[in-house]
Amino acid sequence: MTRTESSALAAALQTALPDGAVLIDEAAVERYAHDDAEWADYATPAAVVLATSLDDVVATVRIAAEHDAPVVPRGAGTGLSGGANAMAGAVVLSLERMTRILEVDAAERYAVVEAGVLNDDLRRHVAEHGLWYPPDPASQAISTIGGNVATNAGGLCCVKYGVTRDYVLGMTAVLADGSVARLGRTTAKGVTGYDLTGLLVGSEGTLGIIVDVTLKLRPLAGREDRAIVGWFPSLADAGNAVAAVSAAGIVPAALELIDSTCLRAVADWQEWTLPEGADALLLAKVDEPGGAGEALADQVAALFEDAGGTQVERAFAADEVDRLFLARRLAYPALERLGPVLTEDVCVPRGAVPEMLSRIERIAEEADVVIANIAHAGDGNLHPLIIAPEGDDAAKARAKTAFDRIVDECRALGGTVTGEHGVGILKLAGAAAELSPVALAMHRAIKDALDPRGLLNPGKAFPAGT
Amino acid sequence: MTRTESSALAAALQTALPDGAVLIDEAAVERYAHDDAEWADYATPAAVVLATSLDDVVATVRIAAEHDAPVVPRGAGTGLSGGANAMAGAVVLSLERMTRILEVDAAERYAVVEAGVLNDDLRRHVAEHGLWYPPDPASQAISTIGGNVATNAGGLCCVKYGVTRDYVLGMTAVLADGSVARLGRTTAKGVTGYDLTGLLVGSEGTLGIIVDVTLKLRPLAGREDRAIVGWFPSLADAGNAVAAVSAAGIVPAALELIDSTCLRAVADWQEWTLPEGADALLLAKVDEPGGAGEALADQVAALFEDAGGTQVERAFAADEVDRLFLARRLAYPALERLGPVLTEDVCVPRGAVPEMLSRIERIAEEADVVIANIAHAGDGNLHPLIIAPEGDDAAKARAKTAFDRIVDECRALGGTVTGEHGVGILKLAGAAAELSPVALAMHRAIKDALDPRGLLNPGKAFPAGT
Repeated sequence: MTRTESSALAAALQTALPDGAVLIDEAAVERYAHDDAEWADYATPAAVVLATSLDDVVATVRIAAEHDAPVVPRGAGTGLSGGANAMAGAVVLSLERMTRILEVDAAERYAVVEAGVLNDDLRRHVAEHGLWYPPDPASQAISTIGGNVATNAGGLCCVKYGVTRDYVLGMTAVLADGSVARLGRTTAKGVTGYDLTGLLVGSEGTLGIIVDVTLKLRPLAGREDRAIVGWFPSLADAGNAVAAVSAAGIVPAALELIDSTCLRAVADWQEWTLPEGADALLLAKVDEPGGAGEALADQVAALFEDAGGTQVERAFAADEVDRLFLARRLAYPALERLGPVLTEDVCVPRGAVPEMLSRIERIAEEADVVIANIAHAGDGNLHPLIIAPEGDDAAKARAKTAFDRIVDECRALGGTVTGEHGVGILKLAGAAAELSPVALAMHRAIKDALDPRGLLNPGKAFPAGT
Repeated sequence: MTRTESSALAAALQTALPDGAVLIDEAAVERYAHDDAEWADYATPAAVVLATSLDDVVATVRIAAEHDAPVVPRGAGTGLSGGANAMAGAVVLSLERMTRILEVDAAERYAVVEAGVLNDDLRRHVAEHGLWYPPDPASQAISTIGGNVATNAGGLCCVKYGVTRDYVLGMTAVLADGSVARLGRTTAKGVTGYDLTGLLVGSEGTLGIIVDVTLKLRPLAGREDRAIVGWFPSLADAGNAVAAVSAAGIVPAALELIDSTCLRAVADWQEWTLPEGADALLLAKVDEPGGAGEALADQVAALFEDAGGTQVERAFAADEVDRLFLARRLAYPALERLGPVLTEDVCVPRGAVPEMLSRIERIAEEADVVIANIAHAGDGNLHPLIIAPEGDDAAKARAKTAFDRIVDECRALGGTVTGEHGVGILKLAGAAAELSPVALAMHRAIKDALDPRGLLNPGKAFPAGT
C-alpha cells in the first residue's frame, strides 16, 4: 500500500466514522502496532479505529475492503502471541471503547456484553447479581472479554471450570463482507445447525470481528475457597506433586506453579521475604464447601508433603487465599521489569509436567538464557518465560532458539504448542508441525469460504502456506 | 440414480470391502433406511455398508463419490430427527461394528474409542479405570458414541455436567474426498488453530464421517447421589418448582419432569402403582458429597413443597436413586407401545418452562392430539411426545400441526428448536426460522468448502435452500 493509498483509506474512515474514532498520528499508530508480543513481527498500520458501536465496526470493515486493506481487530492488546500485531497498511480496529454490559439475566444465568468490557469489570458486575464468570486469565484486570473470546483464553480456574469457550453461548460478529452474523442462543442447551459460535471462539479475528458476546454464568454461591501452599526444594519435586494430585483423581479449582526466578522477581518488587532453600512454589485451591473441601485440602497437603514439599501451609479466608494468588498474578509484570520477556505457552499431558520442566531447565542451560517458569500446572499448561536483557541481540537470538526447542520438546511429549495464548504469529511454525496437512487444508478452506479475499487478520491463527 | 447405476455402485463396494460388509438385500436396505424418526421422509438406499475399519470408511466414501452417490452415516439408528434417514440411491454407512476401545489413559483422564461403541459400554469400561464419562442421553444403553458426537447429544446430567461437545477432545474423521482428518488433542487445554473438532461435533455427518473420538473423562469418585422426588397435582405446579430451583441458583445433577400420560404408560407396562391425584413427577438429583449434598437436597425438597409438591420424598442409596430414574428412561419406549411417537425437542429459558408447558397443553387440546411430556426440565429442554394411533392418517396430520405449533411457541418464548436431538430433517423448517440469513449463508459456505459436491448426508443439519 502506497502512502497515497494509505491516506485515501484514512480519509474514507474519517469521513464515515464519528469524530475522534480514527487515529492516524504517528504516536498512535505505533502504539497500536502490536500487542504484548513485541518479539513477533509487526509493522505500522495505516490507521487505528476506536469503534464505539456495531455500525462503526461494519463501516470500518467495509471501507477497509474497498481499499483492499487488512483489518486487525484488537481488545486491550494484552495478547502474548502477536495475534493483534499489525501489518503495513492495515486498519487496526480496537474494540476497547465498546464497554457496555447490555444485559444480565440472573434467572437464566447469562450476560450479553460488548467486546471491550474488561474481564474483571464483567466479573464484578455479575457478582452484584449473585453470578460468577469463571474464566480468569492472569491478565483479567486488563484484558477484554472480546480478546478473551477471540483467543479462547484460559486462566487459573480452568483446571476445574473450563476455558472461555465453555462459557460462550453466542455472539454478534461482523464478517469479512461487512455482514452482521448473530450466532448462538441464550438457552442452556441447543444444537440448531453448526456450532459457528464455537468456530469463531479462538479464531483470533480471522473469520469475523467479535462485537458482543453472550456468556453463560454460574451461581456465585456454593463455593468455599481453601488454599494449600507448598514450597519445594526443586522444580522437579513440585512437578512430581502436580503429577501426584492428578493421578489421585483430584480436580482442584487451581493448581499453579511458580519457580524461584519468578518468586525472587516478585519478592524484590513487592519487598516480600522468601523462605530459605525454596526453589518452587505450588499454590492449590479447592472450593468444595464444608467437610468435603476440608478433606480434599488435607489430601492435597499430604500429597505435597509426600512429594518433598516443605512448609506446606493452609489458608481458608478469602482474603488470605487471594493474597497468596497475588504472587502468581504478579509474576509476569515482575519479570517484565527485568527485560523483554518471550512467553511460552506449551501444554503437555499432566503426567509429563516433571519431565517437561526438567527439559526446560536443560534448554535454559544449553542455550545460555534465563528461563523463569510459571504454570497452570494442574492443566499441564506451562509458561516458561524466556528473558533477554534489553538491547542484547545475541541473547535475543539465543532466546528464540530456546523458544523453538521448548516447542519441539513439548511436541515430543505429546503436547500442544499453545495451551491458551493462541497461535498468533509466534506459534505459526509450531502449529505447522502440530496440525496435519488435512487439518491445515480444512483451515484454509474455511478461511477462504468466510473471508475469500483474506482481509481479516491475515497470516494469524494458522499457517496459511501450503 | 437408475437401477443399473445402483447395481454398479453396490458391485464396486462389494469388490472393495470385506465379505459381509455390504448389504443389498431388500430387508436390509429397508431396515437401514431410517433412524427412529419414521415420521421424517426417507427412501430406499442403494446399499448398506457395515464398516469395521477406517479403511472401510475411506473406501466407501471414495467409491460413493466416484458414483456420485450420497453417503448417510449412522450409528445405532436411535436418532429422533431423521438425521440418518436415507435418500434414494444413497450408501448408508453404519459404524455400529466399530466397537473397539482403543485407549484409556487413567492418569490423563481420556479415552480413545471407535464410533460404534455404545455409550453404556464406554461408561462401564472406563469405570473400571476409576473414570466417568458423564453425557447420558436417555438412549445410552442403545446409542453409539459416534452418533452421540455427530448430534452433540445431551442427556440427564447435562444440567450440571455439560453435553457431549464438552467431552470431545479430538477425533478421526473421513472427509468428503476420502482424506483422513486427525483433529484435536489429548491435553487438558489447547488452542492450536480453529476448533475443527467442535465444528464436526453436532454436524450430523454433513462435514465428515466420525470414525473414532478422543473423549475427556472425569474421576468416578467424589460424588454421592441423593434423589428428591416430588409428585405434583398439575404440570404447571411442577413447572413452577423447576423455575424455583433455577432461580435459587441451584445446579442439580439432574432435574427431570415426567407427566401423567408418561407415568401411566410406564406404570401399565411395568405394573407399578401410581399415587392418587398426581399429574406430574419431578425427579431431582444432587451429587455433592456429605453435608453439602444433604443441605442441597433439603433445599430442593423444600422448594418442591413450596411449589405445591405432594409426597416429596428422598432417596440416598445408589440403587434406590437408579430405580427412580428408571421410570424416566422407560418413558419413551413405554409410549411407543401406544402408537407412533413424534418427538419434540424444544429448549426454552428455564424460567419459561411453566408457560411452555401450559402452551403445550393448549396445543394438545386445540389440535386434538395426545401429547405426553418428558423434559430435562432443569435445562428448559422439553420433549413433548405427540402420539397418533397407528394407521390414523388424520391424527398423524393433526400431530404434525401440533409439532409445528410447539416449535413456533418455543421460538416466541426465546427458545431454540432443538435442544439435543439435532435438526436432522424434522427440524429443518424450525432451523430456517431460527437461524439468520447471514448464519445460514455461513453454513452453506462451510459445507461447500468441505464437501463441495454435497455428498455427505445432504439435506440434513441445516436448511440448504436460500
